[in-house]
Amino acid sequence: MHNWYFNCSTKLNFCRWQSYLQEIKTTSNILLISTKGFQKRGLIQEFINILGKNNNIIIKMAEENPEISKLNELIEELKGASIEYIIALGGGSVIDTAKVLSIFIQQECKINIYDNLINKAKINNNNPIKIIAIPTTAGSGSEVTQFATVWDKERLEKHSISSDSLRPKVSILDYKLTIGLPIDITISSGLDALSHGFESIWNKNANPITILLAKNAIKIALDQLPELAKDPSNEKARELMQQSSCMSGMAISNTKTALAHSMSYPLTTKFDLPHGIACSFTLGELLIFNSQLDDGRLLQLANELGFGSVEKLSSHIYNLLIELNIRRRLKEFLPSDQREILSLSSQMSHPERALNNIRKAHTKDIEFLIKNSLNKIDFN
Amino acid sequence: MHNWYFNCSTKLNFCRWQSYLQEIKTTSNILLISTKGFQKRGLIQEFINILGKNNNIIIKMAEENPEISKLNELIEELKGASIEYIIALGGGSVIDTAKVLSIFIQQECKINIYDNLINKAKINNNNPIKIIAIPTTAGSGSEVTQFATVWDKERLEKHSISSDSLRPKVSILDYKLTIGLPIDITISSGLDALSHGFESIWNKNANPITILLAKNAIKIALDQLPELAKDPSNEKARELMQQSSCMSGMAISNTKTALAHSMSYPLTTKFDLPHGIACSFTLGELLIFNSQLDDGRLLQLANELGFGSVEKLSSHIYNLLIELNIRRRLKEFLPSDQREILSLSSQMSHPERALNNIRKAHTKDIEFLIKNSLNKIDFN
Repeated sequence: MHNWYFNCSTKLNFCRWQSYLQEIKTTSNILLISTKGFQKRGLIQEFINILGKNNNIIIKMAEENPEISKLNELIEELKGASIEYIIALGGGSVIDTAKVLSIFIQQECKINIYDNLINKAKINNNNPIKIIAIPTTAGSGSEVTQFATVWDKERLEKHSISSDSLRPKVSILDYKLTIGLPIDITISSGLDALSHGFESIWNKNANPITILLAKNAIKIALDQLPELAKDPSNEKARELMQQSSCMSGMAISNTKTALAHSMSYPLTTKFDLPHGIACSFTLGELLIFNSQLDDGRLLQLANELGFGSVEKLSSHIYNLLIELNIRRRLKEFLPSDQREILSLSSQMSHPERALNNIRKAHTKDIEFLIKNSLNKIDFN
Repeated sequence: MHNWYFNCSTKLNFCRWQSYLQEIKTTSNILLISTKGFQKRGLIQEFINILGKNNNIIIKMAEENPEISKLNELIEELKGASIEYIIALGGGSVIDTAKVLSIFIQQECKINIYDNLINKAKINNNNPIKIIAIPTTAGSGSEVTQFATVWDKERLEKHSISSDSLRPKVSILDYKLTIGLPIDITISSGLDALSHGFESIWNKNANPITILLAKNAIKIALDQLPELAKDPSNEKARELMQQSSCMSGMAISNTKTALAHSMSYPLTTKFDLPHGIACSFTLGELLIFNSQLDDGRLLQLANELGFGSVEKLSSHIYNLLIELNIRRRLKEFLPSDQREILSLSSQMSHPERALNNIRKAHTKDIEFLIKNSLNKIDFN
């Protein structure tokens, strides 16, 4: 037996956000992090109407794929404010922004966030502000993880901060908030959840609890994503996808991600390919690749999902990607000359993620995986 | 959609206890709660050899089914001691004793524990001593729950204290500690785990995560308990039963238990029937009873476990109970005149547990359930 660990300290509340927030009374301020989109749609005003009765609220906007320089500006603006809770209302980027702020607003000295990413001890020792995460997408899993992804576009780098201090204290999972989500974001975040499921299974850190959660998350996502593509207002599918996303989030929170994520980051940094597309278009190929050197767990997964073989499950993933029109999204962002994409292969094996993969991938393997994935989705 | 919640803040470490404890360095004392049995077997000396290098250790013994008066004596003995961690090494009773002490040692005023059981606000507001639970049985789930069961034999009452403050901070799940366990305790604690699985499914508080965990826990217990009955030294079966117990513990931690537990307590208080037997000999009957008025979840359970019908799953439970020789245990503790047992029926529907059951049970129903269960196990 190898040693294994499971941790999920975030309190999960699957309920209406309104009923939960009505109970909050602070003695100082609440910091609400959200996006301009929600401000336009009037949701932030709804929050103020409910929270503002009992509390003082500071509102700040987060950006998609939060950049270090912008985060630093936010930290400077907020330094010294006495804040009791940070409420993160939005997708993974909003929740990740809240996580970074929960740590850095309270630092005593002036901070260069970049130094602190490297100086992880500082992050772990800090006493962060409590986060209440209210995800509005179903996919990132950020509402239950100890990770925050931040981007340095100047250096073309992506950093993952990881610390138990970053886990939201509470998450409110209200699927009604995901119903108005545009279809493209619905699909790309849903594919992120699917990717988390697979990545936590073909993972050296997989354990009986993460495998159980991930299998169930995959089953739901395979069933419900086509339903949402057909009818984005399908409430039952929205509710189930939120559960899928949360369960695969609980899984990767304990295993971390693996090769699909490692391969995805250069494509997002260089071509702005949405994260959920970047980390999922290779899943069908990675399933075959990993099953060739695993302990039988992927055949067992294929059997338990009712496919009977890894190859059939792989075909099913490709059919799903084609049905969800991922080809269009790939063509929208990636250069038409495949050589430009493949030239990034050597940067796609970042040890922090790739080494979790149960099978080691060399640059040649990665080239092969990307090429095959693109061809099977009929990219060219 | 109804609202639901999931919480499991205990950090689970499936590893060798030695490797974990070697890292602990306290600035004050460690309180080790265990049993005389472990002292005799030399295990406590092993703990001292490892922990004693870095720490000062206070050792206290717990009793099976901890009684309020005995707990009070322990609290008096320990009052005022500066304790950083409580390590609970033992079964459910030991861990429950540690939970009570973690709350009450630090109370400022002199306490009557009985008053405090009722005055729950005091329990919730307290800042408890951190518990490291090291279960030596696979069944109670106490290592991941916020419950402590305490007994008042004078008044023939059983009390369940419930507070998030009672959750162990960390649990070390080392199946090797369960290998030497006598077969009777192995089976009765394993049946407790099986009962937790079923009780959390036929429960009004069941949710998608608890059902997932419970189904898996039931599947493991149904497969592995007969293996352990045949060969108690089967390490793989020991390892899997520990996982089963932990997963069903995570489930009941969120749903609480239901009718099988409610019916069990008077039998334990009055006749000393071991808890795991008392809360499991009715499972086959309760499965049928609850399936007659459920939302289809029990048929789905039977299907997913491969039985095809609730009736076949019920028969399988009875066959298991007979194979595990539960008849012998029942005869050992219960009076041979069934009327004496049935006379307790009116005390078997304690609202705190029975009201969680998806189907309401009247005293007549309880009589019927007990009678049928005993008859099918060929009690008389």
